[in-house]
Amino acid sequence: MDKMKNIIQAVKGTREFYPEQMFARNFIYGKVRAASEMFGYQEWDGPFIEPLELYAAKSGEELVKKQSFTFEDRGGEQVALRPELTPSLARMIAAKQGELNFPVRWWSFGPFWRYESPQRGRSREFFQWNIDMLGADSPEADAELIAVGATFLRSVGLSPSLTQIYVNNRRLMDSQFDALDIPTDKRVDVSNLVDRRAKMESAKWEAYALEIGLNQNQLDGLKSLLGNFDLWKQSEELTRTFTALEALGVKDYVKFDPNIMRGLLYYTGTVFEAFDTSGSVKRAIFGGGRYDNLLADVGGQPLSGVGFAMGDVVAGIILQEAGLIPEFQPSPAQVLVTVFDTTLLPQSFALAAELRAAGLNVMVYPEPTKLQKQFKFADKMKMKVAVTVGPDEAANGQAAVKSLRTGEQVVVTRAAAAEKIREWLK
Amino acid sequence: MDKMKNIIQAVKGTREFYPEQMFARNFIYGKVRAASEMFGYQEWDGPFIEPLELYAAKSGEELVKKQSFTFEDRGGEQVALRPELTPSLARMIAAKQGELNFPVRWWSFGPFWRYESPQRGRSREFFQWNIDMLGADSPEADAELIAVGATFLRSVGLSPSLTQIYVNNRRLMDSQFDALDIPTDKRVDVSNLVDRRAKMESAKWEAYALEIGLNQNQLDGLKSLLGNFDLWKQSEELTRTFTALEALGVKDYVKFDPNIMRGLLYYTGTVFEAFDTSGSVKRAIFGGGRYDNLLADVGGQPLSGVGFAMGDVVAGIILQEAGLIPEFQPSPAQVLVTVFDTTLLPQSFALAAELRAAGLNVMVYPEPTKLQKQFKFADKMKMKVAVTVGPDEAANGQAAVKSLRTGEQVVVTRAAAAEKIREWLK
Repeated sequence: MDKMKNIIQAVKGTREFYPEQMFARNFIYGKVRAASEMFGYQEWDGPFIEPLELYAAKSGEELVKKQSFTFEDRGGEQVALRPELTPSLARMIAAKQGELNFPVRWWSFGPFWRYESPQRGRSREFFQWNIDMLGADSPEADAELIAVGATFLRSVGLSPSLTQIYVNNRRLMDSQFDALDIPTDKRVDVSNLVDRRAKMESAKWEAYALEIGLNQNQLDGLKSLLGNFDLWKQSEELTRTFTALEALGVKDYVKFDPNIMRGLLYYTGTVFEAFDTSGSVKRAIFGGGRYDNLLADVGGQPLSGVGFAMGDVVAGIILQEAGLIPEFQPSPAQVLVTVFDTTLLPQSFALAAELRAAGLNVMVYPEPTKLQKQFKFADKMKMKVAVTVGPDEAANGQAAVKSLRTGEQVVVTRAAAAEKIREWLK
Repeated sequence: MDKMKNIIQAVKGTREFYPEQMFARNFIYGKVRAASEMFGYQEWDGPFIEPLELYAAKSGEELVKKQSFTFEDRGGEQVALRPELTPSLARMIAAKQGELNFPVRWWSFGPFWRYESPQRGRSREFFQWNIDMLGADSPEADAELIAVGATFLRSVGLSPSLTQIYVNNRRLMDSQFDALDIPTDKRVDVSNLVDRRAKMESAKWEAYALEIGLNQNQLDGLKSLLGNFDLWKQSEELTRTFTALEALGVKDYVKFDPNIMRGLLYYTGTVFEAFDTSGSVKRAIFGGGRYDNLLADVGGQPLSGVGFAMGDVVAGIILQEAGLIPEFQPSPAQVLVTVFDTTLLPQSFALAAELRAAGLNVMVYPEPTKLQKQFKFADKMKMKVAVTVGPDEAANGQAAVKSLRTGEQVVVTRAAAAEKIREWLK
């Protein structure tokens, strides 16, 4: 026990991916890839370290000043471990704006860092799926991105009864705020107010509304607004988006909800967030929307975009709880070639090489030891077939092939071993 | 032009992966996965941020103190962006030493950081393949790792005439250093001396040898030793390793070379490095060896391991120069559904959804615009088929399917469109 105490621990909020956790991460990555590519999106990636100033413009003060891992590198430059991908996207698009074929459809899956308190659904180092379309500003483009998200949910087995995507529109809300005479310089505060509504008791929330300077009329108007689930009918944009969502066959995943605001400053049009309907995890599975000004902000020509991001932590918990992560298969090789003794070891290695050349993934026991121990290892690794070359088999150019599921064993020529194994792997 | 100047640049030594570069990175990752899994290795990953002290023990002073990105996080902890993976591996194995099934075979592919001068074959942010076997200390286990490396080289089309893996053994060299009466406390200096031989003029190298305290006899002995390519025959270990490499069918990729030492302190037995034989890139493609003490050093029970690491930068350059990166296919969807006009847009979206449900990756143009422009876009994205729903097709439940390779076009029922497209994608 004393020995164990000396093991240097991982940094708080980071994760260690043992093969079983890696399998789950890859399951999500694979489904993310499939959903993205089904709609024709190209995979890309940005740097993981970025200049701090890249985030200064639009990421929001809290994200940059309080939640980013930032430091001065050995050359004296202020850098950040990327807390989000959209600013890198804007920079890279802006740099090749004259060469790219628009509309650009890009997706990415990689690591991000935020210095937040680790808790359920939140870690300091996490993976995030980002997917964006730039250079088309139609309401139907918005619908496509929402449909990609719905397609992912469906592909992992999360039905519309388990998950819903809530949609709103910033321009629609702004027109409503105009009607309530809420001044422009209060809009950020009001957005935050709306964002907090689900997390606060209603009396406290109302007190907070008055505190940020709304009058009672405005508060009443806001409450009625946030309860009006037919409001989208006043928006030409949202009407077209919902029509396109119906055409795309994902309408059952989507609901209009005036309470969805999205904290980030850069959204300008339609916004959306997906949630687990059980409320088991309060944080969004994914969220995104349309941004009109990001490219101009990093020095490019104005170009509208729409996209969303999904972290792997919340999605992972929901999939785990719903029993939707497939069973872990410990070894990518389902065949073990055992080693009879030191003399015959090269025979086993040669047979393993022959089986690999025949297209099989094959593990060979890497040292001579009791066969019983080797078979026990094969069991623990859930392998399906074991192959042994003992003295008799070696003398006759043969191999003993055993099904670890049925216990059946046959001795075949080495040339016939691959075929027999394939039969038993089925 | 003024506008462009304002674009915030990426941090020096980081890389931006536009879809074409991402395609090349994924090509390498895919081949790495195939070679690893062919031998039954499980994918895993460690955290990207680690406590600085994890590297203090064995990574070598230069790597930690001069070449790592290190900083104090907001909680006051000294952390490093991982410069290598082996210490994380040792920690994670040590933490579950009682539960894991040994021998453990693990591989990983992910980002690493080193604050070095960016130059050909070197960037500050790079990807690295790591692969290790722990819990077996046979010379045949060493051979397996070398064979995994050779299998990767073969799988990407790098023949033995283009690339070679040079093998040596630390214990063998130590016995030779013993015979030359080189004292133990000079061994690190002598290892560095050997490592530098290829990079220095011979007169300067000899002067350097005397400078670090070798006498003329020892220098002569060392020179004769480094020219003795039959030395391996004196090593029972290497003899068995080479026999196993022959059995594994990769002997043509492997040569004994007494000049291979490997800078890192933790190697204790066989070591190896792969190089481009043309000498176009002087840095190793991959390198590794056996380490006996790493687990005990991080607080675990003693356990021997063998493994290697391959960065993606050198490998990428060599593959590029040899013309071995496959042609970039811009879009994962080879089918474009065009949009005739705003009214018919939902029809195009619905058809795209039907084709996706039939298993095709399909891009739909996201807004109404001139058909000519949409077809031009399809050409630039190298798409193979375009599908249009105009007013006639819409009225009759049909779609116009056009092969962009031959120019041929047919009008089919929507239900028959997927089959026609599949035929033209072949």
